[in-house]
Amino acid sequence: MISKTLQSRIKKIGLQAGSLVEDHDRKKSPNTISLINYDAGQYRENLDISIDECLLESQNPGVTWINICGIENSQIVELIGRHFELHPLMLEDIMSRGQRSKLDDYKNALYIVVRMLTYNHKKQMTEDEQVSLILGKNFVISFLESDNPIFKPIYERLQQPKSRIRQRGADYLCYALIDCLVDNYFLILEKVDEKLGKLEEELFKSAVPDTLRKIQHSKREILNLRKSVWPMREVISNFRRIESPLVSDPTKLYVQDVYDHTIQAIDTIESFRDITSGMLDIYLSNLSQRMNEVMKVLTVVATIFVPLTFIASIYGMNFDYIPELHWEWGYYMVLSVMLMISCMMLYYFKRKRWI
Amino acid sequence: MISKTLQSRIKKIGLQAGSLVEDHDRKKSPNTISLINYDAGQYRENLDISIDECLLESQNPGVTWINICGIENSQIVELIGRHFELHPLMLEDIMSRGQRSKLDDYKNALYIVVRMLTYNHKKQMTEDEQVSLILGKNFVISFLESDNPIFKPIYERLQQPKSRIRQRGADYLCYALIDCLVDNYFLILEKVDEKLGKLEEELFKSAVPDTLRKIQHSKREILNLRKSVWPMREVISNFRRIESPLVSDPTKLYVQDVYDHTIQAIDTIESFRDITSGMLDIYLSNLSQRMNEVMKVLTVVATIFVPLTFIASIYGMNFDYIPELHWEWGYYMVLSVMLMISCMMLYYFKRKRWI
Amino acid sequence: MISKTLQSRIKKIGLQAGSLVEDHDRKKSPNTISLINYDAGQYRENLDISIDECLLESQNPGVTWINICGIENSQIVELIGRHFELHPLMLEDIMSRGQRSKLDDYKNALYIVVRMLTYNHKKQMTEDEQVSLILGKNFVISFLESDNPIFKPIYERLQQPKSRIRQRGADYLCYALIDCLVDNYFLILEKVDEKLGKLEEELFKSAVPDTLRKIQHSKREILNLRKSVWPMREVISNFRRIESPLVSDPTKLYVQDVYDHTIQAIDTIESFRDITSGMLDIYLSNLSQRMNEVMKVLTVVATIFVPLTFIASIYGMNFDYIPELHWEWGYYMVLSVMLMISCMMLYYFKRKRWI
Amino acid sequence: MISKTLQSRIKKIGLQAGSLVEDHDRKKSPNTISLINYDAGQYRENLDISIDECLLESQNPGVTWINICGIENSQIVELIGRHFELHPLMLEDIMSRGQRSKLDDYKNALYIVVRMLTYNHKKQMTEDEQVSLILGKNFVISFLESDNPIFKPIYERLQQPKSRIRQRGADYLCYALIDCLVDNYFLILEKVDEKLGKLEEELFKSAVPDTLRKIQHSKREILNLRKSVWPMREVISNFRRIESPLVSDPTKLYVQDVYDHTIQAIDTIESFRDITSGMLDIYLSNLSQRMNEVMKVLTVVATIFVPLTFIASIYGMNFDYIPELHWEWGYYMVLSVMLMISCMMLYYFKRKRWI
Amino acid sequence: MISKTLQSRIKKIGLQAGSLVEDHDRKKSPNTISLINYDAGQYRENLDISIDECLLESQNPGVTWINICGIENSQIVELIGRHFELHPLMLEDIMSRGQRSKLDDYKNALYIVVRMLTYNHKKQMTEDEQVSLILGKNFVISFLESDNPIFKPIYERLQQPKSRIRQRGADYLCYALIDCLVDNYFLILEKVDEKLGKLEEELFKSAVPDTLRKIQHSKREILNLRKSVWPMREVISNFRRIESPLVSDPTKLYVQDVYDHTIQAIDTIESFRDITSGMLDIYLSNLSQRMNEVMKVLTVVATIFVPLTFIASIYGMNFDYIPELHWEWGYYMVLSVMLMISCMMLYYFKRKRWI
Repeated sequence: MISKTLQSRIKKIGLQAGSLVEDHDRKKSPNTISLINYDAGQYRENLDISIDECLLESQNPGVTWINICGIENSQIVELIGRHFELHPLMLEDIMSRGQRSKLDDYKNALYIVVRMLTYNHKKQMTEDEQVSLILGKNFVISFLESDNPIFKPIYERLQQPKSRIRQRGADYLCYALIDCLVDNYFLILEKVDEKLGKLEEELFKSAVPDTLRKIQHSKREILNLRKSVWPMREVISNFRRIESPLVSDPTKLYVQDVYDHTIQAIDTIESFRDITSGMLDIYLSNLSQRMNEVMKVLTVVATIFVPLTFIASIYGMNFDYIPELHWEWGYYMVLSVMLMISCMMLYYFKRKRWI
Repeated sequence: MISKTLQSRIKKIGLQAGSLVEDHDRKKSPNTISLINYDAGQYRENLDISIDECLLESQNPGVTWINICGIENSQIVELIGRHFELHPLMLEDIMSRGQRSKLDDYKNALYIVVRMLTYNHKKQMTEDEQVSLILGKNFVISFLESDNPIFKPIYERLQQPKSRIRQRGADYLCYALIDCLVDNYFLILEKVDEKLGKLEEELFKSAVPDTLRKIQHSKREILNLRKSVWPMREVISNFRRIESPLVSDPTKLYVQDVYDHTIQAIDTIESFRDITSGMLDIYLSNLSQRMNEVMKVLTVVATIFVPLTFIASIYGMNFDYIPELHWEWGYYMVLSVMLMISCMMLYYFKRKRWI
Repeated sequence: MISKTLQSRIKKIGLQAGSLVEDHDRKKSPNTISLINYDAGQYRENLDISIDECLLESQNPGVTWINICGIENSQIVELIGRHFELHPLMLEDIMSRGQRSKLDDYKNALYIVVRMLTYNHKKQMTEDEQVSLILGKNFVISFLESDNPIFKPIYERLQQPKSRIRQRGADYLCYALIDCLVDNYFLILEKVDEKLGKLEEELFKSAVPDTLRKIQHSKREILNLRKSVWPMREVISNFRRIESPLVSDPTKLYVQDVYDHTIQAIDTIESFRDITSGMLDIYLSNLSQRMNEVMKVLTVVATIFVPLTFIASIYGMNFDYIPELHWEWGYYMVLSVMLMISCMMLYYFKRKRWI
Repeated sequence: MISKTLQSRIKKIGLQAGSLVEDHDRKKSPNTISLINYDAGQYRENLDISIDECLLESQNPGVTWINICGIENSQIVELIGRHFELHPLMLEDIMSRGQRSKLDDYKNALYIVVRMLTYNHKKQMTEDEQVSLILGKNFVISFLESDNPIFKPIYERLQQPKSRIRQRGADYLCYALIDCLVDNYFLILEKVDEKLGKLEEELFKSAVPDTLRKIQHSKREILNLRKSVWPMREVISNFRRIESPLVSDPTKLYVQDVYDHTIQAIDTIESFRDITSGMLDIYLSNLSQRMNEVMKVLTVVATIFVPLTFIASIYGMNFDYIPELHWEWGYYMVLSVMLMISCMMLYYFKRKRWI
Repeated sequence: MISKTLQSRIKKIGLQAGSLVEDHDRKKSPNTISLINYDAGQYRENLDISIDECLLESQNPGVTWINICGIENSQIVELIGRHFELHPLMLEDIMSRGQRSKLDDYKNALYIVVRMLTYNHKKQMTEDEQVSLILGKNFVISFLESDNPIFKPIYERLQQPKSRIRQRGADYLCYALIDCLVDNYFLILEKVDEKLGKLEEELFKSAVPDTLRKIQHSKREILNLRKSVWPMREVISNFRRIESPLVSDPTKLYVQDVYDHTIQAIDTIESFRDITSGMLDIYLSNLSQRMNEVMKVLTVVATIFVPLTFIASIYGMNFDYIPELHWEWGYYMVLSVMLMISCMMLYYFKRKRWI
């Protein structure tokens, strides 16, 4: 059950802050580094280059965007850190995967952590990854945990010479990346919404004990979403109001826009919470409802037949002198009385709406 | 289940902020543009004009109010935007239908989003639409999603030469439009109140499993109302305290008044929440109550007849020597004993208030 | 179910703010106007005078208090408004009955709305009315919805030449009126407390489904109290800290005192909430408790007699060869066995504390 | 049920603020006044003196502490008030017993109300009393509702010439008194803790409907504690940060210490709340649990014997031709079948863990 | 049930603040004092020395760290206090074990209390101890309740001449100690997580009434964790923003890092709360579910056999004239009818999904 945040924390206990711990559990996907250098006039794309080429290229004028997928290799992070003069705490945070969304202002650079949501189709649940963004003077560096095509639309927009992103500086690029990540939230929320829809249908059609487990599971998933998305509110709010030469005023206006989207995502997650807690109420009342139904059948059957059986057993007694037994129509009279009694009872139950 | 906010968000993923996306799902109702130009002395009304006429007319002196119903046509929004020098983000927000209520201050103009509540009589539920208001120097532009007569009272007041609205500037007009939208909330709240009243009656008279579903449905409807109305509190509070040359001090006094109304609307919605959650309690305790009732009938019947049947079955045994069987009055004695037992039991149940 | 706040809001939809709408539903009780003029040295009382006399009298030096009961007549409000140069929004608020408690500072006058609680003995529930107070330079005007003797103690204090109220200005009078209204809350809270006490007794003695309805009813009543009293906290807190030439510092010290009382009233209401929600828990667990009791009786009876009846029915079988039937003491042996079995069962149930 | 706060409020309705109302309900215990006058060099103790002696003594140099037990006599309060030039509102608050904890700053003196908790061993519940402290220049006056030895440790410390309290001024004495009152909270909390411990034991051993009532009772007691202790947080926080010549900076450091203790008391009370609400959950699930147990017995017995009885009743039928009846071993075969059936059922129930 | 916080509070009631009370309950483990003196160039370690040696050594230049395990000996605390000129309140707080986490700024030194979490393997539950840190000019003193190896990693880092901790001052050491304590939280949280995982498994496999007790127990344990960890948030937040010459700006950057970890720990604890409260829901619905199952078996058996028994008892009656009894195939026909009825019922139950 333990989250990977906890795991990655425990690994580093006792180490000095800023220690770079390689996480050997996931040394599978190789690192890929891509570098894009652009300004209003030119655009150069270097996909999948080595770290040395990257550092060389980064000295060109214009805005430089380095996108690194895979953070297992502490050497690359260290080289980047030394080249751009980044604070050791920043480097440590990049390599630990369980960071909460946050914005740290290290004068010469802003460090922003955003949680990226992804949907694991195999496990049928949402997961989240850490994306680190570093905004410096004329450069943005982004670190992803795995090779994820999430920033593809940004590449495409950068390729168009007339797009707004080409006219503006590194801060606008940084904003565009955050915007991209927040937009992605909505795709994930749609998936969750679909799942809840199905669950609700199941709830009304054929609720079994397993349904409860699914509700609890959804509840926990939504709590995790919440934990990922809520801190974004503060991060973006800080970004919007930051007093730093790295962020220009016109860009802040766009950040306000992302802020609104984050609030919408949070609103949606809160609705999800209300929906799942409503589901639990329905599930529990369904249980009671069905118990009621079972009880009614038992009550109706027992209440009708118990008195009738009693009457029959009266005339099954072996007393020497029971006058009714010798009447010619006694048997039929008893049967009629029984019929009458059961009809009365049925009528009574009908009126009580039990049948 | 997915809300249209989510839908409209997802459509624009990956696009540059400020992109105007036409929503082809609803390209049915044509745009209607009306322009009113007035000051204390004169009043000119141009209903259903073309966008070119509109832009031409808007250069007249006095206060200009452009009311646009239908926001599907991105061209109109773009032309308006260029003519009045509006920020691209503002234009994007106008065309996306799922904005939260907000107030953005773009120096040369204020952009206000208000959620308008409407009642869909077919689906028997409340819905909401986005209304965008732009307050500039001497002009107000309002965008509605559909052709809605909600601003009719404003037209009428504008036609009266002595009304306060004619004496004042664009900021007062803007306030009047917001006031109109907030007043409309109360009509919707009355509808919801009515529905809750009916539901409560049903709850006490004849609660069926479907009642639970209706309660849940109302709960969710009220949550949506809440989501629409709550942000208005902040919007109006900001409007009231804004430091902008576009809003004069006397107008702010009136805005305080709308603020009070918004608080009242929120208070009412909170009461609705309490009422529905109380309904759930009543429904669940009704279930228990009815189970109790069923159980009591079963218990009374079984408890009376089971011992009697036992006695009868005693004398149904075929032992050679059961002296009572040969007593002359044995049968009647047994019947009397049975009668006595059942009377005692009935008395016991009476005392326990089970019958 | 709809509250009168909603009702009075809906009536004015579309009207310009500051419009005075007469509420024809309640044009029954005539207006009564009384004017008191006093200072440390003199005291003049004019009860039930016409509006013209009133305005004439109000020009005397000293502090003037005009108390108007009944707010149906828009003409009076208008005349007062014009005479004392009151803002149109203030006049509108006076005439609309559903205002939340608030304090508005219109430079030349303070406008204070206080909700007065009353107890309707017929409906057995609390109700609330709006009281408007206007504090100007040397005058206080109070508007009550109906002719209510609530301010009687103030009259009496004013008549005593040495009372503190005679030595001080209009702000102290205004404070005294608010204090009077807040004190009245405690009388109402005592009534509610009594009702809750009775309800609790009923709950423990003889809870019926109707008890649940009463609990829900009390819950809603307490929510309404809360809605009336909570905003007072802010109103008085603002009054205490207001920067206005109309309120002197020594008076603010007294206002602090009213503030403490309001907090006490709120504390009491919060206790009431806890009490009613505790009642619901008790009611529901009582339901379960009683179900348990019913089940126990059924179980005891059925568990004892079902096996006995089985034994009897064994010897009621008509097999040709059942040796026990022909034993001389067979019948008595069977009876003994049955007695033994039932004794064992009773002992078992005793130990389980079911009987 | 009504609290004494409410009672004492209602008594004074309509009176002018600052009116001293004697509470005749409790005019039993006589007032006792004691005065202590000390500085680093000398210490004079006057126990149980008259008010005149007290006022005379109070003019000595050094710090004067007047401790008055019993607040029924309005004359004493008035004389004290006149002598020390206290504000009438302060005097009124001293005599009304239901004040919330608070700190009022009347320039020439600080007025502090602290709720003292006491444990009524007869009623087995906590109660609270009002303690008023007045801190002036060189004097502290404390008012207790009844003759309570709570300040004994302070007397003892004052008698020691080297104690810190003797070296410092009136503000330190005032702090010491508050500290004493807050320390006392922990004794009461220990009592409540003990009670909860017993209740929990009862809950697990032998929960009866009365247990629920006790839980509700504890819940309400804890709510009352909370109401008494919570406001202390603010009072002490204000005391710590007050800008008054009456409180010196070194003393504020000590006040910080009391503040920490108050927070601990509040934390403990919050834990108590969680414990009692957990108790309710356990009680309710115990009810369900026991119902389950009862049902299982009923089900096992009925399910075993009902089919057996049916078989027996088959062979009790009087058909002319039932071949089995005439088989020699028929009776024994039927008995064996019945045995087999019951064994199978017992095995089934065993597997289901019902027996 | 009473916590040790309460206990240690009660012991000191009536004493003057700053009194050092030895806690005789735990005078078992002897005190151990160790002193480390280091700067960038040198490192000297004195383990388990006497208090006199310690005070002597502490006068060396460079940073001095005194680590004292065991706080029972008031003499040691007093000597330390006198030597370093510490405020008496600080000394009192060091010796009382139930302090809440806090940061007090006594100009010449900072006093920080941190709750250290430990896991008691015998009692299978988490416990917490108080750790006091004093940060002065060039020295740090740490007090632990017992001899705990928690600071071992710090010793190791100090021994490495090139580690960052050796280059920096006392404030960095203090930060490192806090970091060490916060990191330890995650180890404890992992233990709790494991326990919850096991409990959840048990819940789904074989929930017994004891499971409920375990859930309640976990709930309370998590509440205690919460109480220990929450105040750390404020402590570290204050440390980060403190205006004191004792803390340098670069160190504050690292404190920000601990702050993030604390937030993560709090987030994890909040998740635990949600998980346990979800467990309670599952447990309760399991109870209902099982009751349903029991009821179904009873209903199915009773509903099938009760009517059949009735039919059999009809033909057990002793009427002289029951024609069916004399039919040749009467017996077989009745058996067939019974078979038919039971088949129909089984089909009905099948369709209802009861079997």
